[in-house]
Amino acid sequence: MAQKDGLPFLLFMFLSMLLSQSDCGPIAGPVDASDTTAQKGIVEEVANYRDVANKIIDLAVYGAAQNRSYRRLSKFTDTIGNRVSGSHNLEMAIDYMFNATKEDGFDVHLEPVKIPHWVRGKESAEMILPRAKNLAMLGLGSSVGTPPEGIEAQVLVVKSFEELKQRGKEAEGKIVVFNQPFVNYDETVAYRSKGASEAAKLGAVATLIRSITPFSINSPHTGWQDYEVGVKHIPTACITIEDAELMWRMAQRGQVIVVRLKMEAKTLPDADSFNTVVEIKGWQYPDQVVLLSGHLDSWDVGEGAMDDGGGAMISWEVLSLIRDLGLRPRRTLRTVFWTAEEPGGIGGQQYFDQHKVNLSNFNMVMESDLGTFTPVALQFTGTPAARKVMQEVVKLLAPINATTLETHGEGTDISPFINAGVPAASLHVEDSRYFWFHHTEGDTMTVQNPHEMNLCSALWAVVAYVVADLESMLPR
Amino acid sequence: MAQKDGLPFLLFMFLSMLLSQSDCGPIAGPVDASDTTAQKGIVEEVANYRDVANKIIDLAVYGAAQNRSYRRLSKFTDTIGNRVSGSHNLEMAIDYMFNATKEDGFDVHLEPVKIPHWVRGKESAEMILPRAKNLAMLGLGSSVGTPPEGIEAQVLVVKSFEELKQRGKEAEGKIVVFNQPFVNYDETVAYRSKGASEAAKLGAVATLIRSITPFSINSPHTGWQDYEVGVKHIPTACITIEDAELMWRMAQRGQVIVVRLKMEAKTLPDADSFNTVVEIKGWQYPDQVVLLSGHLDSWDVGEGAMDDGGGAMISWEVLSLIRDLGLRPRRTLRTVFWTAEEPGGIGGQQYFDQHKVNLSNFNMVMESDLGTFTPVALQFTGTPAARKVMQEVVKLLAPINATTLETHGEGTDISPFINAGVPAASLHVEDSRYFWFHHTEGDTMTVQNPHEMNLCSALWAVVAYVVADLESMLPR
Repeated sequence: MAQKDGLPFLLFMFLSMLLSQSDCGPIAGPVDASDTTAQKGIVEEVANYRDVANKIIDLAVYGAAQNRSYRRLSKFTDTIGNRVSGSHNLEMAIDYMFNATKEDGFDVHLEPVKIPHWVRGKESAEMILPRAKNLAMLGLGSSVGTPPEGIEAQVLVVKSFEELKQRGKEAEGKIVVFNQPFVNYDETVAYRSKGASEAAKLGAVATLIRSITPFSINSPHTGWQDYEVGVKHIPTACITIEDAELMWRMAQRGQVIVVRLKMEAKTLPDADSFNTVVEIKGWQYPDQVVLLSGHLDSWDVGEGAMDDGGGAMISWEVLSLIRDLGLRPRRTLRTVFWTAEEPGGIGGQQYFDQHKVNLSNFNMVMESDLGTFTPVALQFTGTPAARKVMQEVVKLLAPINATTLETHGEGTDISPFINAGVPAASLHVEDSRYFWFHHTEGDTMTVQNPHEMNLCSALWAVVAYVVADLESMLPR
Repeated sequence: MAQKDGLPFLLFMFLSMLLSQSDCGPIAGPVDASDTTAQKGIVEEVANYRDVANKIIDLAVYGAAQNRSYRRLSKFTDTIGNRVSGSHNLEMAIDYMFNATKEDGFDVHLEPVKIPHWVRGKESAEMILPRAKNLAMLGLGSSVGTPPEGIEAQVLVVKSFEELKQRGKEAEGKIVVFNQPFVNYDETVAYRSKGASEAAKLGAVATLIRSITPFSINSPHTGWQDYEVGVKHIPTACITIEDAELMWRMAQRGQVIVVRLKMEAKTLPDADSFNTVVEIKGWQYPDQVVLLSGHLDSWDVGEGAMDDGGGAMISWEVLSLIRDLGLRPRRTLRTVFWTAEEPGGIGGQQYFDQHKVNLSNFNMVMESDLGTFTPVALQFTGTPAARKVMQEVVKLLAPINATTLETHGEGTDISPFINAGVPAASLHVEDSRYFWFHHTEGDTMTVQNPHEMNLCSALWAVVAYVVADLESMLPR
């Protein structure tokens, strides 16, 4: 996942929750006799899928498909490695998945997308004073580089944007080091995305941001950052928790800290890329779609196994499971492997722009981009009426202990659909360590577990198949 | 801590346990009336230290000394950085601690030690086939280097020494990658210490060992290794869990893997160094000693805060606490900061050789080298009679919930004393993450916690002071 979701999305979620709890307002009408009848109908209709749900779960978790999504993921990531937006590796990854899903027997096509092409180049950060020390670092996506000789400057260490403002006069000509504590990702990521511009407004020459993570083994985390329009672009990188704390302690002692930062980072013209679209056509309403997705691009470190190879692979696995069982739903199951999620949901946004004319045909959109560890719940955004249907659907997941339906489905790539009112689902997994590995060299197959991926695949398949096969589309 | 403890030590422990449980044999005689009287005497004698123990604990955990050992450690590690055997940094560290303890008001002197001087130099490992990938690595202490152009060879991946033997004919001319699972440190470290020689016997040209850790964020762990006499010395380094597993998966698929290893590592002539000895002289028996210790050297990565800056600092803190309270025990409290523990307890061994003529004066030896996290128990090696005394001493630790006495005190530097029958104590802490950081760039102040260090200091001080002040030395 990337850093975008942001305030408009959260506001939408909040309003949805309010409405879903109030039983009134423009979406949820008062309960009347026909509603009750309809509700009784949907309970029975969904309950009739118990056998097929059990078959899907058995096949995915205990049957011939066991560990298939893990094997596919390991072969894919081991073969390609990481796949940053604009890179040759991402092109290879798209080719790989096009061919692999075609060989698996599916209809697959590519839809063009223009994507950012930022290149890291060589980079280093070195503490010169009070003593020589290499600082592990990763430049941030979209950062400008330094001059070839680097930027050598005194450091100002702050713990918050507030402290930066209070000490604004000290920032001129300095490298600002942000040593903000980790609260949670959505809140703390603001330092990564806005730190450079906030410091540049005060005359800073570069920024080094403490990595956005609760835990570190001297491991820097990269990620996208956003220059504010009209503010000077200064180089920006993440350093480790350890080194941010080290410099903070030194500053507290009144020591003068000098750092030399070298970054070759640059942005090239946008590159040509593709969303990869794989389908099982619906037998009755082929134009109506349940969309499942994950993103194929990753950062240029690690293997992008967790973010988001796993999400892509379980979304492919759904189609394989349904096909293996000889099933075909009323509506189309469409798996999309997004390109260029990390620079801010570029693939998802362009897909939405190209398809929004048919918005009413999108029954539900799903994205898995928060890890494929043990699933604990389905996250869902939709009207109260749609939620009532989904409450029945998740009951089918009792065999894998994932019958909880939570509020707000999320996903950078599907957020344009969510904002347009399309029902949306995402996967809530046991993710306590997700941000330890996120955007680091540690995002590899070693963090993935075949059984956990089986469970995710089973959940994803049951939800997608049943929603695609119900007599009616989810109510808006 | 380093890798040495080994089989002779374990054998000794096992025999000690047998004897302590059997109530017979040369050490533990049958209980008679005089034993019972003596036991009653020691119960009362130790119980009389309750007030002084509480004062020590209050001062260390809640009083003016609160967080002092943490502050000292952070200033020390932030100022010096890491301190590998033979390095200028280690010389600076010894100077620093000599001056700091002198300024703190103690008698301090240096005792010369000849120590190994291994230098890492530049190093890299790169996978060439089946695809280009940088492999995070750390050469192992005492390893030879490669030729300047490196060693480029096909890889043989094995999971165990047994598999290596079974596939012995495949090793000729290859780089052997050990992808052994982590069982526990004492068992699994054999791959690091013996892997190179075992592979060299079969004609391998280099070895890459999966780091000895249960957890990784692509973090390689260094450590000492031992060439077997008469076996060719080949370059050896640790790689990450992630890359060892990656190459194992590739090998399982039948892919040819080629790696290029470059290491400038070399061993220089032994260097001059010192154990640092700081004392509070006993008022009644100044020649009789309770020795407390930690080691000042570290690996050449991270800050050596956990291994073993923390152990050194709490051993200094004991003297400061006792002095602050105006106490002076009957026997001498001697804090020793060992040099060159990591290459195999060099400082400890030479100290033992120089002082073994006075072995009977060493009342108890203590080493903290397993972390200074929340203390849970005192580990102790000694006769059953000595253990009965220590059972009473640990009761004084009730205010900090550390009244458990466990078998076998340990510590690389004090092991010569233990093998010679001197009572020995070490600190058992909540160390579930110790080996995550051990010998990595992640061994920094970030893993240390001031309150936990206060608790360790309190325990260490109560035990050392009371044992040094009892009317009699611990029975042998």
